[in-house]
Amino acid sequence: MEGLDSTQLRTLAAVAAEGSFEGAARLLHVTQSAVSQRIKSLEETVGQVLVRRSRPCRVTAAGRPLLRLAGQLVLLEREALADARSPLGGARTRARVPVVVNADSLATWFVGALARLPGELALSFDIRQDDQDHTAELLRDGSVMAAVTAQREAVQGCRVRRLGAMRYRALATPALVDHWFPDGLTASGLAEAPVVVFDRKDRVQHRFLRAVAGRDLDPPVHYVPSVPAFGEAIRRGLGWGLVPEQLARADLACGACVDLDPERTVDVPLYWQHWRLDSAVLGALTDAVHAAAAEALR
Amino acid sequence: MEGLDSTQLRTLAAVAAEGSFEGAARLLHVTQSAVSQRIKSLEETVGQVLVRRSRPCRVTAAGRPLLRLAGQLVLLEREALADARSPLGGARTRARVPVVVNADSLATWFVGALARLPGELALSFDIRQDDQDHTAELLRDGSVMAAVTAQREAVQGCRVRRLGAMRYRALATPALVDHWFPDGLTASGLAEAPVVVFDRKDRVQHRFLRAVAGRDLDPPVHYVPSVPAFGEAIRRGLGWGLVPEQLARADLACGACVDLDPERTVDVPLYWQHWRLDSAVLGALTDAVHAAAAEALR
Repeated sequence: MEGLDSTQLRTLAAVAAEGSFEGAARLLHVTQSAVSQRIKSLEETVGQVLVRRSRPCRVTAAGRPLLRLAGQLVLLEREALADARSPLGGARTRARVPVVVNADSLATWFVGALARLPGELALSFDIRQDDQDHTAELLRDGSVMAAVTAQREAVQGCRVRRLGAMRYRALATPALVDHWFPDGLTASGLAEAPVVVFDRKDRVQHRFLRAVAGRDLDPPVHYVPSVPAFGEAIRRGLGWGLVPEQLARADLACGACVDLDPERTVDVPLYWQHWRLDSAVLGALTDAVHAAAAEALR
Repeated sequence: MEGLDSTQLRTLAAVAAEGSFEGAARLLHVTQSAVSQRIKSLEETVGQVLVRRSRPCRVTAAGRPLLRLAGQLVLLEREALADARSPLGGARTRARVPVVVNADSLATWFVGALARLPGELALSFDIRQDDQDHTAELLRDGSVMAAVTAQREAVQGCRVRRLGAMRYRALATPALVDHWFPDGLTASGLAEAPVVVFDRKDRVQHRFLRAVAGRDLDPPVHYVPSVPAFGEAIRRGLGWGLVPEQLARADLACGACVDLDPERTVDVPLYWQHWRLDSAVLGALTDAVHAAAAEALR
């Protein structure tokens, strides 16, 4: 069997990362037509369409294994060159580290993990944000090398280890509680009181509703897909919502918010999944993520 | 000409909002096959495919004018019913308010605008977040009724008014400045020093680079698509980056960060664009947004 061309694979990775042939050309310092030619050649070799030419470009199902291979190849090549003390390796070519992280981890403990990595590794972090129930998808399609995810089953070709649980508390203003829950956290109050939800992938509030009421409820919803805006919407009394305990502390301490039910918390177990690959970068990142999570999560 | 069926239009709006036939069925309390049938009938009436059956579902170019019409119809109908004091109107059917806002506005002043609206309006905010250079796209495709955007030319069918400018300051840790800019903000330092960028749509850092160096530079980049994580990445010394002055103040005051060039700021003018529609909800929202922006922006 003829092997695959590594320049073409690298080009596929650049198109996927930048979302366009134009962006890939800029990144690789070549013309757009060179990018186009390389992708076409790779598609001819494999006998499959690898990139859907949409805006942004998307790697097809057939392209996913090749995208992952390309990312692994770039990482291993760079590390081999660095070990060989080649002038091609080292700090001049930063290793791109594409990872996907859920919004609440990103807003609280995850950057602290990155800051633990030694500067000599010369990394370039490429973070995506997605719901913890969906982060594994980007790992599956080869776009990222690691994920903070709620999925405990290992994605094919990946290793998985538990990070701990993020604990959420149901917060609201005292005025909202007086208005909607004068007799405590009743099912009828929960069915009517407006709730703040991050986005349509966020099911944490609905899990809490189900746990309290014993059935699915359909209260009015405000979608607020920004961690600081989500907290602000609760503080301003637009609705109640579930907030990571790390972020809840200040609002509870100053009395801006109260805990709807201090006895009832929602714990979301999080896992670190990453490519099964003997890489110094991935090893150092994994150690840093576990150390930071051990301090921040339960 | 035969008119369009308002139930079918409402169903189109629900599919677009929820991203799936299943989600629309849940929202409208009908079966999924009813949703499917209504969309099919509407497509037959119009003679165009209106929804691409992908995950998530997307409204086609042909569907966009109908999606906007559907949103306007729902809003006007609800207000007419409320004016007629019909039991069908009022608080039992909350008006969905789909808007798109840039991340930094959402993380700073925008929620304060929503909190100014009287509770009697019984609104359900459906906020999307996107880069200010791209928010107008969702307005154009009919997904939202209003946008905080950098685009000053009115989108077709919309009114536009200036909100003010968001001022950004270039922040970094003192250690990063010592390491990369020992002789001040030189082009050679800026070409090498790592920079924190929100995502691939974010061009603010590159505008600053161009303004200082007089040409495009291509430094190493960390992508950090979360407002709190972006600030944290700068405080932890991963790179320098442009921060809204409202968020920069605390880090400058405590000495965690310094201003790379206090004389050089980047001002991003923001505009409020909304459907050209005589609606009480849209009018109240517009007034609230202008009032909050007048306090927060320049």
